[in-house]
Amino acid sequence: MSSTTSNRIRVAILGASGYTGAELLRLLAHHPQIEITLLTADRHAGQELGAVFPHLAHLKVPRLIKIAEADWSKADVVFCCLPHGTTQEVIAALPRALKVVDLSADFRLADVDVYAKWYGHAHRAPDLQREAVYGLTELAREAVRRARLVAVPGCYPTAAQLPLVPLIEAKQIDADDIIIDAKSGMTGAGRALKEDMLFSEVAEGIHAYSVAKHRHAPEIEQGLSQAAGRPIVVNFTAHLMPMNRGILSSIYVRLANGTTPADLRATLVKRYAGEPFVRVVPEGVSPATRHVRGSNHVLIGVFADRLPRRAIVLSAEDNLVKGASGQAIQNMNLMCGIAETTGLAQEALFP
Amino acid sequence: MSSTTSNRIRVAILGASGYTGAELLRLLAHHPQIEITLLTADRHAGQELGAVFPHLAHLKVPRLIKIAEADWSKADVVFCCLPHGTTQEVIAALPRALKVVDLSADFRLADVDVYAKWYGHAHRAPDLQREAVYGLTELAREAVRRARLVAVPGCYPTAAQLPLVPLIEAKQIDADDIIIDAKSGMTGAGRALKEDMLFSEVAEGIHAYSVAKHRHAPEIEQGLSQAAGRPIVVNFTAHLMPMNRGILSSIYVRLANGTTPADLRATLVKRYAGEPFVRVVPEGVSPATRHVRGSNHVLIGVFADRLPRRAIVLSAEDNLVKGASGQAIQNMNLMCGIAETTGLAQEALFP
Amino acid sequence: MSSTTSNRIRVAILGASGYTGAELLRLLAHHPQIEITLLTADRHAGQELGAVFPHLAHLKVPRLIKIAEADWSKADVVFCCLPHGTTQEVIAALPRALKVVDLSADFRLADVDVYAKWYGHAHRAPDLQREAVYGLTELAREAVRRARLVAVPGCYPTAAQLPLVPLIEAKQIDADDIIIDAKSGMTGAGRALKEDMLFSEVAEGIHAYSVAKHRHAPEIEQGLSQAAGRPIVVNFTAHLMPMNRGILSSIYVRLANGTTPADLRATLVKRYAGEPFVRVVPEGVSPATRHVRGSNHVLIGVFADRLPRRAIVLSAEDNLVKGASGQAIQNMNLMCGIAETTGLAQEALFP
Amino acid sequence: MSSTTSNRIRVAILGASGYTGAELLRLLAHHPQIEITLLTADRHAGQELGAVFPHLAHLKVPRLIKIAEADWSKADVVFCCLPHGTTQEVIAALPRALKVVDLSADFRLADVDVYAKWYGHAHRAPDLQREAVYGLTELAREAVRRARLVAVPGCYPTAAQLPLVPLIEAKQIDADDIIIDAKSGMTGAGRALKEDMLFSEVAEGIHAYSVAKHRHAPEIEQGLSQAAGRPIVVNFTAHLMPMNRGILSSIYVRLANGTTPADLRATLVKRYAGEPFVRVVPEGVSPATRHVRGSNHVLIGVFADRLPRRAIVLSAEDNLVKGASGQAIQNMNLMCGIAETTGLAQEALFP
Repeated sequence: MSSTTSNRIRVAILGASGYTGAELLRLLAHHPQIEITLLTADRHAGQELGAVFPHLAHLKVPRLIKIAEADWSKADVVFCCLPHGTTQEVIAALPRALKVVDLSADFRLADVDVYAKWYGHAHRAPDLQREAVYGLTELAREAVRRARLVAVPGCYPTAAQLPLVPLIEAKQIDADDIIIDAKSGMTGAGRALKEDMLFSEVAEGIHAYSVAKHRHAPEIEQGLSQAAGRPIVVNFTAHLMPMNRGILSSIYVRLANGTTPADLRATLVKRYAGEPFVRVVPEGVSPATRHVRGSNHVLIGVFADRLPRRAIVLSAEDNLVKGASGQAIQNMNLMCGIAETTGLAQEALFP
Repeated sequence: MSSTTSNRIRVAILGASGYTGAELLRLLAHHPQIEITLLTADRHAGQELGAVFPHLAHLKVPRLIKIAEADWSKADVVFCCLPHGTTQEVIAALPRALKVVDLSADFRLADVDVYAKWYGHAHRAPDLQREAVYGLTELAREAVRRARLVAVPGCYPTAAQLPLVPLIEAKQIDADDIIIDAKSGMTGAGRALKEDMLFSEVAEGIHAYSVAKHRHAPEIEQGLSQAAGRPIVVNFTAHLMPMNRGILSSIYVRLANGTTPADLRATLVKRYAGEPFVRVVPEGVSPATRHVRGSNHVLIGVFADRLPRRAIVLSAEDNLVKGASGQAIQNMNLMCGIAETTGLAQEALFP
Repeated sequence: MSSTTSNRIRVAILGASGYTGAELLRLLAHHPQIEITLLTADRHAGQELGAVFPHLAHLKVPRLIKIAEADWSKADVVFCCLPHGTTQEVIAALPRALKVVDLSADFRLADVDVYAKWYGHAHRAPDLQREAVYGLTELAREAVRRARLVAVPGCYPTAAQLPLVPLIEAKQIDADDIIIDAKSGMTGAGRALKEDMLFSEVAEGIHAYSVAKHRHAPEIEQGLSQAAGRPIVVNFTAHLMPMNRGILSSIYVRLANGTTPADLRATLVKRYAGEPFVRVVPEGVSPATRHVRGSNHVLIGVFADRLPRRAIVLSAEDNLVKGASGQAIQNMNLMCGIAETTGLAQEALFP
Repeated sequence: MSSTTSNRIRVAILGASGYTGAELLRLLAHHPQIEITLLTADRHAGQELGAVFPHLAHLKVPRLIKIAEADWSKADVVFCCLPHGTTQEVIAALPRALKVVDLSADFRLADVDVYAKWYGHAHRAPDLQREAVYGLTELAREAVRRARLVAVPGCYPTAAQLPLVPLIEAKQIDADDIIIDAKSGMTGAGRALKEDMLFSEVAEGIHAYSVAKHRHAPEIEQGLSQAAGRPIVVNFTAHLMPMNRGILSSIYVRLANGTTPADLRATLVKRYAGEPFVRVVPEGVSPATRHVRGSNHVLIGVFADRLPRRAIVLSAEDNLVKGASGQAIQNMNLMCGIAETTGLAQEALFP
């Protein structure tokens, strides 16, 4: 960040001590059109950022404070990285003049009944729920541009919907027979203290979790239902594996009559032509998470299946970037009338 | 190994310098009824075992020699850990008095035309091919007992067939709609020098490989076709990930009419009751590769799918043990009239 | 464990839900002369072992109970895997008829003042402290044989003292100029919930911790001081790195006048000749933690330094086996008059 | 890279298919004052960059060619990422008008006799050797500015010399008693096919290598000897561990009479005040490689030792950035009169 900050968009980050907060800071530190004016982290209030994230100790940013201490007149845009559930009340209490980019799940589900079912309580800000725009940027660009409150999609739903929505809209796959086998790195589970997130519980292993009851399933289904024009249910099976970043979605689809895997590829190539962050990889190339690590890119591959009338669609993203903080900034850029790719030009860190 | 080796079965290991060779040595070192009398490794001929595997330097075993130098009168059983393709000629040249446990793919496919199609050349020992017993032990115990030549199943096929064969035999799933998404540790790819096996190409990443053309697909299909009584094709999609050992198979199946996920579970529980190495884990528990690391166990779980009329079957194994050398020893024990679990009692090494 | 358990030594494990508890269970499960009769884990009391360690769910062992519920008449030997500080009171309350193998730090420091200084409180069982034998087996075999209470050495102190004590006793190195740079896998830090033990905080990184104030320093110094016959202080610098198991100690020593690196090697070779678990590797070979993973072995290497009159001594162990539970069992075997290696014959799990 | 490339410095990268080549491309892709006009990779000549590095497939750069095919009139600066030994002849054959930044070891050792001893053959371009500037940027800034040929320091020597040179110059440590225990990620070993670089040989382990004969020792000694004004020999012991990037150097030093650890700290703080890429971390903070991953930063910490009159100095860097390609660009910026930090502003990728 340069020291000349006049005219810059003033940015607040709420809940800056988690991984999505760190990732916002990493990316925004060199965003030429913003300045960071507010950082909150209730448990770490009073500390310098470097006490929580030593790798960012040299950044010129304000000290961490409690949300209750925030002077909202200092901000134009708020990134909200708070836990699910508490977020809705915090955002409801913010001045309406602030643009809000929320990285929690609180405003992702448009249907408050679905929300209540999956999160175990009635939504506490249903008006905001209605106002919120679901920020899967490539598929909602114009709505995001006009939005005041954007819900950043979950990491898994981003990786699943980007390839699937265009295929369903094109009626090239059977929307009632979709299996999404997703493999995620550990940052997707956040920085909370849980035994199953300890190094020694994770290294040298893989397992499925929340089988058939993962909260990202209704979010994926919401997007696919919109694309299909009718309610869609999917198999979404998430796995945790020993890497920091990355989601690989291996998606198994049944082809519509007369459709070939090449047709799927053509649809996706056309849909994402010109998109800076979504790329369909060449035929025969297998998208790998290591090729998007640290970048805002999504890679999509399409393969014919040995099973007749089926295809395999693979997508890879970095869960902390396109799956969270990168997409959040992409949305902010649009909401603020800035070029969409600003601050997001990093190449993947390979190896 | 004790020094009193009279009456022990004399074991030769061909190709002892690879990972399956090392794993045989690890397990056989404390097998009370065998002694190791011959070790070959053409590229390392003349060396002590410790030069290739320092962790085994203290074992009292013979020096590595070339296959051509082997005195077959010193062995009762031969474990063959040679590359695919060359194996068949080596085994064809062995004295008929030897029992042979082959860990390559050379004798796994009963149909020589299928072999030729997937391996690119006509089989060079079709008579042996006919003689060979496919050693998926729990499903072929009696045939293994009588066999002279056993083909040890591939690592992926073991993890896939153990749960699927009983379900197909029970006609509880649609054998034409099976999707097997498998995640493997790197030892499954062997010890050969390939760029994509370097640490820095693998760590912090995951990707699918050989999509829709992996050679383990026809092997899985062979077993499932036998179970179904008709030709079966499956989706088998393999992924490589950063761990040494382990395969997790996430298998997506369509239920037969009137069948529930609980029925699948009941079938598997019944089928594997009393089996020392195959366990159906309790409802709600997700099989994890870390819980079988270094052991000959296979864990199987069954979950209802959110998609109606579908279920999810998960299986975990150590690819080097039950997926290779452990199952090889299990078969040898049967072939030699020894208790099947001898030498295979190790618990998983967790963490 | 066989079902015929008469005449077997009856073993209790206190604090069975941590990693050293799991490792004791892994190893004792196939120890032919013991049976496990008591398992405690206060937070998990009432649960089956499989709820805490799914990989051990098939073992025939008692349910987990609270320590307060234990019927001590059921046990002959107690392994104590409780946290530092609470251990001393638990052990003080045990019937004197029980043999006790303690894996905590509570009885390792013979000098109660040193204990008080490093652990922040006066020792609460000083009589037991005096009774306890420091169980670095190879260097204290006879005392262990006669002991009722053995303190199992810490993981780092085991890896450091085994090579250093003989060299100091032989007066071949300057005991006042010893630098021990140790690198440890994460299980050494236990199973407690701490942010810096989360997978994403550890993977892809290394750092030193507790620099110049690690509690294993006084323990190492106690052993070296005994060997030297005068107080010794050392540099002991511990590092945490992304692996589950293993400690590599790179030890930098100054040679006594007229001593060569070859002399150090000769001393260690002679000292550990015939030892089943300690091996000096051949000249030029670098001890690697992967070659002792899961085994009770320690590998020691000696190299000349480029600095004149200095040498480099490297030692590798598995911190959970020789550095904790393996050495605990080795001691128990001696205390009970069983062959020392019983139950400890596993080879390293490589890869 | 923007499409308007007039006035930009035209950059060639020789040997672009290795890890340092990839890292140069990652960083240069968004360097605002250069354009990439030439890429060579003899084994991959004719291929697009994306065939070798899929993560960079979207960059607008020329196809890979053989060195022999290069049109040198297209370049102003050449980065040379070729193997040691061949580099010197390639560079000798380049037009003198080109500025050259060499990442090999060929021009690092000023004394051709030392070179011959450690690399096994006489230097083939001794005149260039004399011309070359050793580009440890912070310590050679003015010389680099005027240089035509810069030898980029090795990864280990960078991490070792940055803390040690100022301390030796200040006569605060005994230059004859320095022990450097370095731990490196695997990219430091390059992309060549060697068995000991396979994932399964590296994961879950650590070991020292090239003990007392690593080629970076004379390079470190050269820099320290210059600082001391007399020949210095050091202990440099390198270890390989399972991470992609990062070097942690744990350096053990003896204090000069009357010097305290606080004095060392003060010297380093003063020496690196104002440096954009070198930071002395606060007292008590332990430099961690994860906090520099992907960035050009070096973190240095100083701790008092328990051994009297000794201190511990820790330094962390990313071996591919400050240890190779980042420092190479830093040097190029100076050589071309560009602001030194241009293109190097990335924050560390944590987690």
